[in-house]
Amino acid sequence: MEQERYGYLGPEGTFSEMALIRYCNSEDKGVPLKTIREIVEGVKKGQICRGIIPLENSLEGAVNLSMDLLFREEEIKIIDEVILPVEQYLLAPAGLKINEIEEILSHRQAIAQIGDYISRNLPGVKITYTDSTAAAAELVSQSTNKAVVGSRRISDIYGLKILVGNISGEYENYTRFVVISNGREKTVEYKQDVDYKTSMICTPVINGPGVLYKILGEFANRGIDLTRIESRPTKKRLGEYMFYIDLAGHQSEPGLQEALKSVEERSGIFKVLGTYLKKV
Amino acid sequence: MEQERYGYLGPEGTFSEMALIRYCNSEDKGVPLKTIREIVEGVKKGQICRGIIPLENSLEGAVNLSMDLLFREEEIKIIDEVILPVEQYLLAPAGLKINEIEEILSHRQAIAQIGDYISRNLPGVKITYTDSTAAAAELVSQSTNKAVVGSRRISDIYGLKILVGNISGEYENYTRFVVISNGREKTVEYKQDVDYKTSMICTPVINGPGVLYKILGEFANRGIDLTRIESRPTKKRLGEYMFYIDLAGHQSEPGLQEALKSVEERSGIFKVLGTYLKKV
Repeated sequence: MEQERYGYLGPEGTFSEMALIRYCNSEDKGVPLKTIREIVEGVKKGQICRGIIPLENSLEGAVNLSMDLLFREEEIKIIDEVILPVEQYLLAPAGLKINEIEEILSHRQAIAQIGDYISRNLPGVKITYTDSTAAAAELVSQSTNKAVVGSRRISDIYGLKILVGNISGEYENYTRFVVISNGREKTVEYKQDVDYKTSMICTPVINGPGVLYKILGEFANRGIDLTRIESRPTKKRLGEYMFYIDLAGHQSEPGLQEALKSVEERSGIFKVLGTYLKKV
Repeated sequence: MEQERYGYLGPEGTFSEMALIRYCNSEDKGVPLKTIREIVEGVKKGQICRGIIPLENSLEGAVNLSMDLLFREEEIKIIDEVILPVEQYLLAPAGLKINEIEEILSHRQAIAQIGDYISRNLPGVKITYTDSTAAAAELVSQSTNKAVVGSRRISDIYGLKILVGNISGEYENYTRFVVISNGREKTVEYKQDVDYKTSMICTPVINGPGVLYKILGEFANRGIDLTRIESRPTKKRLGEYMFYIDLAGHQSEPGLQEALKSVEERSGIFKVLGTYLKKV
């Protein structure tokens, strides 16, 4: 295994790299990869020791591919989370004015986060989706009439000017990343007076009234706070879902342990993704 | 208001148009629009009488923008649903062989639906996202080395050849569309022995253990089946969600009426989106 090599969604300058730098407190440990799938594969095969992947955004919600890979790849576990404040800027080559922009390029998530701004202020402009905000910045830096939505950091890397600052400013824009490993790492040890989160995935065995209600009851009746629930299609048929659930607490605490066991008994597929320090 | 004019996500040949044709039983009533936002705006302003928008897919899950617009636009109601089986094909200009493809173009949803196929069979190929499968087909029809992911129907419209048939074949691939109106239409009348669905949106007033559990209890304890639940960020802060819920039944049935009233009392924002005939 490559010690101390952490995979992230590259290239240099993406929000994923910023999250990784925040996590490692170093700019030298990141391995830029092209897709979330490559990060997960790299961790599985031990080519990188850990990976960081985006899981949800406060404006755009769940990152579907990350959710599905956590569901499908049995050995992948969550060992930490990173909450990154996201500030989107409209960046362009020097000299370009807002009313001269003919095309805006960026990652789909970045475009979606400022969709309201674009439809109000730049309604006719062509939108092109790229693999990352950094890939868009590179293309824009070689153009004369294009702009990119991205971080202040990529304006430095690609020599772009800021046309509009912090566009999503009226809303709180955060992305939550999780750090994944291949399941051979030990779960963080339980200490009193520390806040933990535990993440799990399950599919109910049967459909019908009250199935999800009974699952949530295992937590509610033990006073365990559910901080997030997401449903994702099982991909078997329309109307069949798996549930991704974040809980307050450490999986070794008796109440939570008991609740997880009861939920497992009610589930077809069941997986505890991991326990880690709560960051928000 | 334009009578009998139905907005859909164009251009001609998209899955949205196929869903609309299925709904109207006619090829002449559709108005192709460029974005989901434009469809919703058109319905609000009465430029079109109704619109059809994608809400969820059995492989890719919720369509975020549709969910958010239903949440935000108070007067928009759901009056019907259409379930469309989706078959994705890999299409290319005549003569191009699979191993000669240099670039694949399509709508993000179509690419995501066959993401596994691409990463297994065409790992190095460049991916470009377009506004619709039909827009991709038009670009591909003018190229010599590009392919598009889309329906059999667009292969006819744009004169393309089928390279690979029904790619998502190992999974059941359906998209669920909803038909929206501006809320002035009367709710479908209740008849016995007919299956209805009622859709609603709510945000819990408080956070803490058991909030969602209590909301679901209003339905479960009355034997009302919850057919779908999705959480979406409220866009206020990370960790605050609104819930979109589909229920079996008509909103005028006493049990469901009572349950909705109780949920409304527990909610900040609350909206019944509509009752309509159940299609699956």
